[in-house]
Amino acid sequence: MTRIPKNHPRYKSLMTREKISLAMKKGLVHETGLIAHGRGEAFDYLIGEKTQPFAEMAEKIAAALLLYAKNPVISLNGNVVALSAKECISLSNAVPAKLEVNLFHRTNERVKKIIDNLKSIGAKEVYGFNANAYIPGLNHDRGLCEKDSIYSADTVLVPLEDGDRCQALRNMGKIVITIDLNPLSRTSKTANVTIVDNVIRAIPTIEKWIKVLKRNDKSELNSLIDTWDNEKMLKEVLCFISRRLQDL
Amino acid sequence: MTRIPKNHPRYKSLMTREKISLAMKKGLVHETGLIAHGRGEAFDYLIGEKTQPFAEMAEKIAAALLLYAKNPVISLNGNVVALSAKECISLSNAVPAKLEVNLFHRTNERVKKIIDNLKSIGAKEVYGFNANAYIPGLNHDRGLCEKDSIYSADTVLVPLEDGDRCQALRNMGKIVITIDLNPLSRTSKTANVTIVDNVIRAIPTIEKWIKVLKRNDKSELNSLIDTWDNEKMLKEVLCFISRRLQDL
Repeated sequence: MTRIPKNHPRYKSLMTREKISLAMKKGLVHETGLIAHGRGEAFDYLIGEKTQPFAEMAEKIAAALLLYAKNPVISLNGNVVALSAKECISLSNAVPAKLEVNLFHRTNERVKKIIDNLKSIGAKEVYGFNANAYIPGLNHDRGLCEKDSIYSADTVLVPLEDGDRCQALRNMGKIVITIDLNPLSRTSKTANVTIVDNVIRAIPTIEKWIKVLKRNDKSELNSLIDTWDNEKMLKEVLCFISRRLQDL
Repeated sequence: MTRIPKNHPRYKSLMTREKISLAMKKGLVHETGLIAHGRGEAFDYLIGEKTQPFAEMAEKIAAALLLYAKNPVISLNGNVVALSAKECISLSNAVPAKLEVNLFHRTNERVKKIIDNLKSIGAKEVYGFNANAYIPGLNHDRGLCEKDSIYSADTVLVPLEDGDRCQALRNMGKIVITIDLNPLSRTSKTANVTIVDNVIRAIPTIEKWIKVLKRNDKSELNSLIDTWDNEKMLKEVLCFISRRLQDL
């Protein structure tokens, strides 16, 4: 990782790539996670690699939803942990929300490695290993979760999530917030709130809004949440990228 | 690889992902090749996952340039071999053009593995292992090539190439044809001809045009080549994607 010079025009992006690559070598990230990261890179480039107003607003709404929830849970996978483990722990303390590891390519070994990694940097409790419930409609491994965490959650933040899982969580009646750089993905279209932003920028921005909105009472949070139109925002993202491509 | 059902809406894309992933496990593809593949996937999605007219035209011009050349060479890296090894061998026979393995993250072991793989499926001669020349302006490993192949080539087809290498080859006075799904990349902007298409579709389409244009004499090829405006085509691609995003 020392071979990338700090003045390289793509330094940030290259370092992020190294992080994901290293996490794969450590067994935290599945190899298809690297391909998914590449797709994210392309879309991040198209939105200008910064938090655009449509994302900032979604992050504010996400904060309101997490504060409004009775049982909020943050779902973590290999890529999320590789890129923003500390930030997720900090957000879970700020809300407060539970943390649960949920993997698309699940192995107990990988779940354990991820949980150990999170605990080594300060997480107190992380759900996911003692999976004792199923999300209905998903096949065996992908549906596994913990009864006291995701299964009974009313609101879940599922960054970098698969479309099927996102839909299955919605079918359970949960409020689903996702972080997905691809405004066209099934996940983006299925979630109640889609944050079209890099997870690295999104998690700290949600936490920033948690601190601001913590003073508000439930009815104020509710009024804010009521203003959200996810479909309209996704159209705005496509218009934004479309205009940007013409100007580049 | 048997776990993906043929009727899955993303079957082709998932199978391609499996191919790249398997090639990494075999040591043919570097892990950052998986991230690069993901970026490609995103841009392929944006152009509709098919050969658009701007790509078809670039593939025709590429065929004309390869036929016009005195020493054409096709440069191969891990991703290209993982996705279209047979097609590249077939194209090299049709032109005819030399094949040379050139890696961004070069190790002799990986070069050898790729060459062995190509020979096992029918390639007769593959350059790249006995690298005895340097492309000026690139650091040690990335600049290595063979004197009798890329170093002395007048025209090179470098699919999925790095921006620096593309520029360095142009600085040597060579005609550079690239295949790159990202119309905004430095490689795309630097090459003489940029084929904005998936390498899987592009290589056979170039070969199709080789067969058509083989009957033409050099002056006819030259007239065709003269019509090409790479910058104009790249603008057309951006307009195409931009319009498509509005319609999606």
